[in-house]
Amino acid sequence: MRAFICGFGTIGQSVARVIKEKQDFFSKRYGETLTLVGALDSKTYISDPNGLDADAIIKAKKETGKVGNKDYKDIKDALESVDFEILIEVTSTNIETGGAGLENIRYALENGKDVVTANKGPLALKFKELTDLADKHDRYLLFEGTVGGAMPIINLNKYDLAGQKIKSIRGIFNGTCNYILTKMDDGQPFEQALKEAQQQGYAETDPTNDVEGYDSACKVVILANSIFGRNATLDDVEITGITSINSDAVALAQNNGMVIRLIGEVSPTKLEVAPRLIPRGHPLSLPGTLNTAEIITEYAGPITVSGVGAGGLETASAILSDIIDIMDERIGD
Amino acid sequence: MRAFICGFGTIGQSVARVIKEKQDFFSKRYGETLTLVGALDSKTYISDPNGLDADAIIKAKKETGKVGNKDYKDIKDALESVDFEILIEVTSTNIETGGAGLENIRYALENGKDVVTANKGPLALKFKELTDLADKHDRYLLFEGTVGGAMPIINLNKYDLAGQKIKSIRGIFNGTCNYILTKMDDGQPFEQALKEAQQQGYAETDPTNDVEGYDSACKVVILANSIFGRNATLDDVEITGITSINSDAVALAQNNGMVIRLIGEVSPTKLEVAPRLIPRGHPLSLPGTLNTAEIITEYAGPITVSGVGAGGLETASAILSDIIDIMDERIGD
Repeated sequence: MRAFICGFGTIGQSVARVIKEKQDFFSKRYGETLTLVGALDSKTYISDPNGLDADAIIKAKKETGKVGNKDYKDIKDALESVDFEILIEVTSTNIETGGAGLENIRYALENGKDVVTANKGPLALKFKELTDLADKHDRYLLFEGTVGGAMPIINLNKYDLAGQKIKSIRGIFNGTCNYILTKMDDGQPFEQALKEAQQQGYAETDPTNDVEGYDSACKVVILANSIFGRNATLDDVEITGITSINSDAVALAQNNGMVIRLIGEVSPTKLEVAPRLIPRGHPLSLPGTLNTAEIITEYAGPITVSGVGAGGLETASAILSDIIDIMDERIGD
Repeated sequence: MRAFICGFGTIGQSVARVIKEKQDFFSKRYGETLTLVGALDSKTYISDPNGLDADAIIKAKKETGKVGNKDYKDIKDALESVDFEILIEVTSTNIETGGAGLENIRYALENGKDVVTANKGPLALKFKELTDLADKHDRYLLFEGTVGGAMPIINLNKYDLAGQKIKSIRGIFNGTCNYILTKMDDGQPFEQALKEAQQQGYAETDPTNDVEGYDSACKVVILANSIFGRNATLDDVEITGITSINSDAVALAQNNGMVIRLIGEVSPTKLEVAPRLIPRGHPLSLPGTLNTAEIITEYAGPITVSGVGAGGLETASAILSDIIDIMDERIGD
């Protein structure tokens, strides 16, 4: 099979590297491999039906800022330059319009490609349209990487908890906020904790999407739609961020043996992101940049999972599990 | 499809109940259902090609101690009394000989049945023989319920972390020991903590398998064989239990911000069960009867999962996910 990567930042480059490293694994499991035949960034693309060398295009991107030597205006020009079966959509998230990612996913599904994405915007805004489109064209649209980075949660529910009703999911879905709240618990004021998160590369220059809770809300929407079968969008989520938390609130929590965490909550009737008081030692009191989720199940009680919530290779690992899922179905394992 | 349950204690009864409750789910997913056509306990059996009523046989078992009105001496008599496709093997674990479970699994695989089991003994002693037998007869042998009860771990590695090399797994695999160690951390001596665990129903009258680490070692062997492709048996595990831990050791740990936990550890080169010092707040410092595992992956760093490690319905939930796995493959989802 053949893959085209849309978006060639940290995640795209990591996916290219992982596909290269897993050539033997694919050959052994399927009797054929997965060939990377195309890659694009926001302005340029490169494609070759005989396959691209991941190291070479990563090097080019790092040295010149461009993945390829051909410019494109219409995404069609890039995606029609070569035949392929799987589109890997990892352009940067835009939660206002869905951005290029929304167009790329639509184009791919309409043209018979399976899609794997880690791009939250399109799914948080147009979940039903996109999954309907996938169904109509009998294609897969898989998105484990959109929630919690490396932390398995979509597929955990699909496979490991198959057949069970899920009563609710509560989790820490934004590592940046959790880093800031952990620092505040250590005595830093919000502004200083945010600054440190920015210096560490955890928070963007404009941290609005993280600290106002929008990023967590996107994940809540994706879980609500994919696991609870709802038809929600970002507008349906009650969102409170962490910007109004001050030292007094943190001290009050501490005096009661609690910590403050930004918790996303999904159930058949609830869609909410808000700071919560969590008892110290509870799984949802996890410090640092990890993501975690507590899944309340019909038969198994609470199942808790945690993992690194962001990062190139970590997100690529979620994408790899989705690629394998598609190849298992298309080729047979 | 049709199922036969071997072993009708807490787990067997829970499985019967779950199969009954999931009739609509099966019909919707497969266009056909899963019919329970047989059940046996250590002495009696009952079977009916038209299906058994779970409530009726659970009631009979509770009132008379017998699941059925027919005695059997040879397992063949019971299993040949009715046609079925899936054997659910949940007789009690025997880690010395494999017990009835080993015979039942062998018989089923040789006679063309798929097998789902939560019975650790046969897999800890004869993993290679049984998986080879399953391969030879082109049957499934699935065993999510053998490790960590409701906590997904075998399938988590198979599906969610597909394609990645697993570097190591460390975990709390025995809720009884963890309960005792938690109580000791609260100031109780070992003997009193054990007695309380027995009163709560967490520990058996003879607690040897738990407190000497053999139960944890069984799980370590099953993980080593199924996830790391090793060919290990119980004899290959270095085992130290918790019976020699005294108040001094607990106090020393506390003075250093640590707790003592019985940790099972598996890697390509290591097979060990031993009490370890774990920093308070670390995922492996979890208190109470939960099980937890920290999986160190190639790309995703540490993935941690926890869940209820024992109990009828909790184990039945792991068995349900394996049943669905088989029905997906045999019928198609």
